[in-house]
Amino acid sequence: PDEAARAAAAERQRQLVKPPGALGRLEEIAIRIAGWQGREIPAINRPTVAVFAATHGVAGRGVSPYPPEVTKQMVATFTNGKAAVNQICGVFGAGLRVFDLALDLPTPDIVEQDALTEAECAATMAFGMEALAGEPDLLCLGEMGIGNTTVAAAIFHGLYGGEAEEWVGPGTGSTGEVLARKIAAVRAAVARSKAHLDDPLEVLRKLGGREVAAMAGAILAARLQRVPVVLDGYVVTAAAAVLKALDPTALDHCFAGHVSAEPAHRVVLERLGLRPLLDLDMRLGEGSGAALAIGVVKAALACHAGMSTFAEAGVADA
Amino acid sequence: PDEAARAAAAERQRQLVKPPGALGRLEEIAIRIAGWQGREIPAINRPTVAVFAATHGVAGRGVSPYPPEVTKQMVATFTNGKAAVNQICGVFGAGLRVFDLALDLPTPDIVEQDALTEAECAATMAFGMEALAGEPDLLCLGEMGIGNTTVAAAIFHGLYGGEAEEWVGPGTGSTGEVLARKIAAVRAAVARSKAHLDDPLEVLRKLGGREVAAMAGAILAARLQRVPVVLDGYVVTAAAAVLKALDPTALDHCFAGHVSAEPAHRVVLERLGLRPLLDLDMRLGEGSGAALAIGVVKAALACHAGMSTFAEAGVADA
Repeated sequence: PDEAARAAAAERQRQLVKPPGALGRLEEIAIRIAGWQGREIPAINRPTVAVFAATHGVAGRGVSPYPPEVTKQMVATFTNGKAAVNQICGVFGAGLRVFDLALDLPTPDIVEQDALTEAECAATMAFGMEALAGEPDLLCLGEMGIGNTTVAAAIFHGLYGGEAEEWVGPGTGSTGEVLARKIAAVRAAVARSKAHLDDPLEVLRKLGGREVAAMAGAILAARLQRVPVVLDGYVVTAAAAVLKALDPTALDHCFAGHVSAEPAHRVVLERLGLRPLLDLDMRLGEGSGAALAIGVVKAALACHAGMSTFAEAGVADA
Repeated sequence: PDEAARAAAAERQRQLVKPPGALGRLEEIAIRIAGWQGREIPAINRPTVAVFAATHGVAGRGVSPYPPEVTKQMVATFTNGKAAVNQICGVFGAGLRVFDLALDLPTPDIVEQDALTEAECAATMAFGMEALAGEPDLLCLGEMGIGNTTVAAAIFHGLYGGEAEEWVGPGTGSTGEVLARKIAAVRAAVARSKAHLDDPLEVLRKLGGREVAAMAGAILAARLQRVPVVLDGYVVTAAAAVLKALDPTALDHCFAGHVSAEPAHRVVLERLGLRPLLDLDMRLGEGSGAALAIGVVKAALACHAGMSTFAEAGVADA
């Protein structure tokens, strides 16, 4: 980021007609985005939500209460403008792009086989970089894929260790035997990969799905193009965690849009040093929590740009 | 509220194309507003932020780092469209109304004298009901008044007991001797009123400022007109607390827009059974936190109204 722009924005915040710090995290948002955009007064005119959809062989193990066909059906619902994320984008004037990652070709069951070959993983990451093609100035990431909280839990278990149970939650609503199968699948997939867990890209390749690889590519590309990113829930955060494990500064341009109801999400956000903007018990995915955070970001930038300074307003300072 | 409309909205949420409960608090917001508006699919078309400004004799004790003139200067800034709340209203398409409560006539110093006579208190509450005159369908409350976190702390200390220190925080930035004077003023004002602390309206009259009385009137009137209310920070919550002490159901139509950085705000929200929608370390007042929550409310209603049901979308249910 541009440290001079960042410093100028911080100085502007000190002069705006409010007690210093009184806008709390809205100040931090404006200052950070100023750094990435390289100007004292940043603006977001083209916020975009990119939703990556993929299918997962592990779903065949009955780890979700929903059948695998739902992924494709939900992609059609996004296209028809009738899902939650469409409505939230409408409220905040955000564009929505849906990336369909070979839905008819599920990745292999990660309990038995690597999700992606090296070539596939690299190509999928490169494809994810297409999220920047429309030149968004704020990129919100979301996903859809029955079985992908299983994949995300496997990635976290692979990266961070511990027990499989710590990383597996209900996702869309797994309980009882479905949850038990989910935990067993995560444990087995990570055990199968145990010789390679010190290489984050191998963790991604062996345990991740296509949407996770694509989102990792999108986060990387956004950083290179200095576009701030808003992460959504547990699955998006798994893509972010892979990058953070490779490079501690990889997420400096990322905001956690929200903390989801998936229990381990709070744990991983803390581990990544990301404090969520929203905490509303959401657990839908499809970028809904990230899209909702656009309102907060827009308000932060509007205050930063539109408020008077004490001097301009003729208000007595402390 | 209309229980049939509420139940119909809850049933609709179960049919929308998402796992049950996956929109978290957005579902609760839509269902509650359905009850108050008396229709399965509610809408917010005229959200309004009403900011009440007043001056306080207790400010003469040096309880704030800002001079009392700032209240009037900030009212001018609201009128000129250059304060934080103006920018946030702009982002979310909300109207802003500023109610100036005899700024040239501060209420007496509550350490020595009651803030309001009975007639003044009643008249000020009635004046606050004017916030409903423009027929808002969502009423966000805010305030401006140098010295009014001292007043709010006195009200909470009066209603809830404990020690003055528990209820006094920095407000706009009181520290050191300023903070010590603030604590002393709250302690003395409540001690002076101690024979009347079992009557919430007397607590309001003796310790409250005009903006607090007016906001209490606005909350009451909104309830009668079934208009949902979004509370802002510590001072607005003091008005709400007076009503709740009179009637446990008085705040059933209220949402806590946010929890502010004022330390005791979290305590009083819990006491009132209100869970904040946002937690962004804001402590500005002027309705800024409530206005920011409009985005969340709008998104909740947009999802409720615009999403397909599973049947409409042809998506397989769990």
